[in-house]
Amino acid sequence: MKTMLELGQAAKAAAAVLRGAGTRQKNEALFAIADALRRQQAQVLAANEQDLAAAEENGVRRTMLDRLRLTGQRLDAMAESVLQVAALPDPVGRVLDGWQRPNGLKIRKVRVPIGVVGIIYEARPNVTVDAAALCLKSGNAVILRGGKEAIHSNRALAQLMRGALAQSGFCEDAIQLVENTDRAAAAEMMRLNGYIDVLIPRGSAGLIRATVENATVPVIETGAGNCHVYIDRAADLEKAVAIADNAKTSRPSVCNAAETLLVHREIAERFLPLLAQKLAEHQVQLRGCGETRRILGGAVRPATEEDYATEFNDYIYAVRVVDSLEEAIRHIGRYTTGHSEAIVTEDYSAAQRFLTQVDAAAVYVNASTRFTDGGEFGLGAEIGISTQKLHARGPMGLEELTSTKYLVEGDGQIR
Amino acid sequence: MKTMLELGQAAKAAAAVLRGAGTRQKNEALFAIADALRRQQAQVLAANEQDLAAAEENGVRRTMLDRLRLTGQRLDAMAESVLQVAALPDPVGRVLDGWQRPNGLKIRKVRVPIGVVGIIYEARPNVTVDAAALCLKSGNAVILRGGKEAIHSNRALAQLMRGALAQSGFCEDAIQLVENTDRAAAAEMMRLNGYIDVLIPRGSAGLIRATVENATVPVIETGAGNCHVYIDRAADLEKAVAIADNAKTSRPSVCNAAETLLVHREIAERFLPLLAQKLAEHQVQLRGCGETRRILGGAVRPATEEDYATEFNDYIYAVRVVDSLEEAIRHIGRYTTGHSEAIVTEDYSAAQRFLTQVDAAAVYVNASTRFTDGGEFGLGAEIGISTQKLHARGPMGLEELTSTKYLVEGDGQIR
Repeated sequence: MKTMLELGQAAKAAAAVLRGAGTRQKNEALFAIADALRRQQAQVLAANEQDLAAAEENGVRRTMLDRLRLTGQRLDAMAESVLQVAALPDPVGRVLDGWQRPNGLKIRKVRVPIGVVGIIYEARPNVTVDAAALCLKSGNAVILRGGKEAIHSNRALAQLMRGALAQSGFCEDAIQLVENTDRAAAAEMMRLNGYIDVLIPRGSAGLIRATVENATVPVIETGAGNCHVYIDRAADLEKAVAIADNAKTSRPSVCNAAETLLVHREIAERFLPLLAQKLAEHQVQLRGCGETRRILGGAVRPATEEDYATEFNDYIYAVRVVDSLEEAIRHIGRYTTGHSEAIVTEDYSAAQRFLTQVDAAAVYVNASTRFTDGGEFGLGAEIGISTQKLHARGPMGLEELTSTKYLVEGDGQIR
Repeated sequence: MKTMLELGQAAKAAAAVLRGAGTRQKNEALFAIADALRRQQAQVLAANEQDLAAAEENGVRRTMLDRLRLTGQRLDAMAESVLQVAALPDPVGRVLDGWQRPNGLKIRKVRVPIGVVGIIYEARPNVTVDAAALCLKSGNAVILRGGKEAIHSNRALAQLMRGALAQSGFCEDAIQLVENTDRAAAAEMMRLNGYIDVLIPRGSAGLIRATVENATVPVIETGAGNCHVYIDRAADLEKAVAIADNAKTSRPSVCNAAETLLVHREIAERFLPLLAQKLAEHQVQLRGCGETRRILGGAVRPATEEDYATEFNDYIYAVRVVDSLEEAIRHIGRYTTGHSEAIVTEDYSAAQRFLTQVDAAAVYVNASTRFTDGGEFGLGAEIGISTQKLHARGPMGLEELTSTKYLVEGDGQIR
């Protein structure tokens, strides 16, 4: 088993090769990986069985087991998404800007790979393949560090991908897996300055916090989503009910699902009963402010300060009645994780103010927060959703896995 | 004296106001600051005298004293550079991309301020004004933390700028100074997550390292420059001498000055004596490999491994003769801090390979590394030179002080 430093050194060497790799060469490597995922399933499925057996023994929840499980069909789907990545345009080499200086120097700003990308993630083995494919296409070497629960599956998938790379004549260290699933190994990875150029944690809030706290290599924060839907006094009630419902119930466990509903006082009396009726279909638990409870009745649980700060990821909705657009914006400013925020309104100026003043990766007018997603945005695949403001904000596709470089050409200029 | 948390809270509130500020409003605030710098010099100069007296008492070096000293002329120059920042185009509000999805959602990606920028810097009080002006123009609130040596000057400058902001009806907490110059205060600033969106250290390698090591808020690394000039076998000797000389001697103390010279074996015998003659004018000390010493004679000190890794910032040049372009690229890959690297050659393919394979913020053909600079690049003012690959790479101007945000407009779309 390689040490973390050895993994870093091998990745850095691979990154130097990848820097000069052409699009065709990278695509051929991706085709080889997709092919292997379709043809060499037995070994991966057997390894997955080991993970599943261990998980069952440890009494892991059924939903977790499902996330962990691989099938022939799921491997085919993974192959399909690798081919989709191959079909995306190559961001590397694009000239973003260029000009000539009075002294004759020609300056170009071009897209280049970042170098070595580290990914720390949990449970789902499909991340192993998705992340590797996106990094490869964008010309980066990747060091993958998955969870203990999926280690056999991840190892088999990494072996399969490295085999495919080698077979297509590509540098196999472009994809490496950290086989040590101890916390200490992850901690070492977070401090591998000089070898890892960026670290992307994907998973629970705890994992992301630990990475931000401990990493000395640059980190892109992803995922945490305490999202709000604000129903303005000028909202169209039909749209409001549909959006408030969809943002919560279409998939409550994901980061772009709404957690708190803000309702303008003037419309609350009409809107809340309609919404409550709709949400009852999904047995959504409401936790409301005093006014909400006055309107909907005492069966609604009182909302606490903590409820407003919580990403439930569940069929629970905090509800608060506000006196104005400004109060809604203030509430959001206080509790937002900067992911996705929506207003439902037919008032032009209210919409403009919300778009300008709310500070989040994606701000919506009259649409569900659930659209914050690489696929839904039309970016192709995504490596995560950044909730920080540096480098990338919102869904991160291939472009966000690149850096830039200035190329400066002269004929002897000195200063 | 405000606590760090109070500074953070005030900055966050100011950032919310700045988010909606128009270009004209921001420019008027900058005009007011420039005006105050010209008219209210007495108080700043008196404060600067206090710093100078303390520095002399502590036996500070003469060059440091000069960096610390303010004069009426220097304050006028600071006012002038504030006006130059006002004249730059406002990056905020620019639509970078926009498209419509099949479901009718309209998506725009627009430039927005980052929010709250923290700057930790040393000695020079002009950074206080430069950084504040750039942050203001890009719509960010700034928290400035200068060095102990300049505290009186910085306090006077911050007061002057805040007064000018207040006078022009602008939120004065857009510019705040950390008055506590203890290390503990800086450490607290580095962990002010939720209030500071990005921290930019400007100064010594030690300061930058400490920031990267200790910060939990996102950091942009700046400055460290172990830059190389490679003289290819196909170099034009005249250009080679001029560039190798200029890159070292035009200003050895700055980060874009060259530290190591790599010379192709085939040209070394002709090139090195010419260069040595030129460098003698500046009494540059050479530290050479065996081959360099064979050619130039034993008076050249032997270069150690450590010399190649050192940013001398002085009239010292490490010199190494290499067998090939590849060896030069490998040497650079090993020792570069990713700042600026140059090749001197008339060989087209060698130039292309160098541009592609060398991984640095700025890669040069036939020009001095000394051009890596916001002004020289034509970006207007700069807040620093990023040597990391995330968010910004190379000279950082106003654009690099912004983030982006997705605005998504619909008419009731749900998923």
